[in-house]
Amino acid sequence: MPELRKDPVVGRWVIIATERVRRPSDFTVPHYPRKGGPCAFCAGREDETPPEILAYRDESGERDGPGWSVRVVPNKFPALRIEGDLERRGLGIYDVMNGVGAHEVIIESPDHDRDLDALPASAVAEILRAYRERIADLKGDDRFRSVLVFKNHGVEAGASLEHPHSQLIATPVVPLVVADELHFARSYHGYRERCLFCDILTQEIEGRARILAEGTHVVAFAPFAARVPFETWIMPRRHAAAFEQSDDALLADCADVLRTVLRKLDRALSDPPFNLLLHSAPFGASDNPSYHWHFEIMPKLTGMAGFELGSGFHINPVPPEDAARMLRDTAID
Amino acid sequence: MPELRKDPVVGRWVIIATERVRRPSDFTVPHYPRKGGPCAFCAGREDETPPEILAYRDESGERDGPGWSVRVVPNKFPALRIEGDLERRGLGIYDVMNGVGAHEVIIESPDHDRDLDALPASAVAEILRAYRERIADLKGDDRFRSVLVFKNHGVEAGASLEHPHSQLIATPVVPLVVADELHFARSYHGYRERCLFCDILTQEIEGRARILAEGTHVVAFAPFAARVPFETWIMPRRHAAAFEQSDDALLADCADVLRTVLRKLDRALSDPPFNLLLHSAPFGASDNPSYHWHFEIMPKLTGMAGFELGSGFHINPVPPEDAARMLRDTAID
Repeated sequence: MPELRKDPVVGRWVIIATERVRRPSDFTVPHYPRKGGPCAFCAGREDETPPEILAYRDESGERDGPGWSVRVVPNKFPALRIEGDLERRGLGIYDVMNGVGAHEVIIESPDHDRDLDALPASAVAEILRAYRERIADLKGDDRFRSVLVFKNHGVEAGASLEHPHSQLIATPVVPLVVADELHFARSYHGYRERCLFCDILTQEIEGRARILAEGTHVVAFAPFAARVPFETWIMPRRHAAAFEQSDDALLADCADVLRTVLRKLDRALSDPPFNLLLHSAPFGASDNPSYHWHFEIMPKLTGMAGFELGSGFHINPVPPEDAARMLRDTAID
Repeated sequence: MPELRKDPVVGRWVIIATERVRRPSDFTVPHYPRKGGPCAFCAGREDETPPEILAYRDESGERDGPGWSVRVVPNKFPALRIEGDLERRGLGIYDVMNGVGAHEVIIESPDHDRDLDALPASAVAEILRAYRERIADLKGDDRFRSVLVFKNHGVEAGASLEHPHSQLIATPVVPLVVADELHFARSYHGYRERCLFCDILTQEIEGRARILAEGTHVVAFAPFAARVPFETWIMPRRHAAAFEQSDDALLADCADVLRTVLRKLDRALSDPPFNLLLHSAPFGASDNPSYHWHFEIMPKLTGMAGFELGSGFHINPVPPEDAARMLRDTAID
């Protein structure tokens, strides 16, 4: 059972995951060869993964058989374990709890070689619906406080398998980054009685310099203080704290804009490595008037060195206005 | 002039450094070949760097000439600019200021091939004295609030030049990571009326499981919630908020322990890439009863992927007790 330990100096939780040490890749930055399929995530090899948690397939298909378009399975090497109690306890001045959580893989397509940006918009919408369904389900487990959905694309961004997939991790504590967002958003709301994210969107839409793509329900833009070149956020126009409360129309529009952004990044930067992150309200804050869910897309073009690690500052060599203009100007078919 | 922009969502400052875009390495993770010296940092090529800010050399040596043991020069590609006023201003809901700061390179040795761990302890102590002297000097510039000293060793840790060197950046705002440490330490001190770091050290010395090396004045240990395998902290035994107030005896002892830790890491992990960070009290908090300066050494053996980025959680596959035991057992000559 992995252990969750809290760093008392900065309030950060660390998963001390002893089970993972057996994978040799844990000691080195992985460099897997681009070797093509089929792999355990491909159609027809469903018996090579743990039994599925969820799949979208036509009526005739059987559980853990082929015929699916999106399939969710437990991670074979989970960072946190689904069984067990939290058992929060102290060790002198330190805080520790059992490493309980859910770690799932969302296989985005039965096809080994079709990345998110190469799928039709309807297939991307299905993936977003799978995110929604899994978050809504995990919300029912009262050991969990929050779910983070994320995607690592490319070795440099931490992908260790090439078949297109996202992951989600449900945690028994609110992650520090989400807690910080909640804190600043609440403080802004306390002063202005408006949602910080709604105000950001209003100012971005007025200014236009950092707007990248607009849908009926969502907007993609480069954030004012982008940490990395070509960082892009996608945010719903209407205030909404919890992603899992989105309706189908919103998800379809979001899929369309997400696909547009990924296609533009692919064309402009030749298939860059990137991380996709979904920040949504923790459980119990679904109706929060100050929080607003959003996707963050972080291309990995530069490394993180000592200054960034030690200070929390980031150095971004590309102004987000330039990045947004370059992506607006990038033609996609 | 680069710009400092504040992310309103998490209170994080980003340096939007347009000048740096001209370096092609800013768009890709750098992969310089191990090509050996001599380079611009080597003895005899002092005219290839900007004029020195500080150097330790024997009496007969001339400014910007050879004969030095440690030499500090401005960074040729600074993240922040030394000239100009801060000009804090708002842009609608956003906050921005001029990218004013100091960015200096501490050349650790005239010898291209002698890393920190291969230098005699007295030479390492000289480097620490150079840190101290530069921080004390920059403290006099009332535009600055804080200095971060850091070292990137190895390409994977962000080094772009192989000649052994550290860097420092003086910033006009307190870095988020240091602000977080101050916040938690103050909150602990408010409740217990003791320094959190002093209490950590007491518990570690009693428990011994994570102790790595002990000097007369400083102790090296693996932190309880280590973020990465073999993370190591070095902390003075006596409460001290500001590194620049250290006396020579403390720095000599610290150099000795730092060198021991780096030699053990080198032997145990075959010259791993790492980041070395110095966390010291911001200017104006030098006598803070709740803050305590320390070095953090973060080997870079694993990558940072979407989950870490999006949540602030870290996944550490090696328990710090195991890492400390392995390093204690590693023989160095």
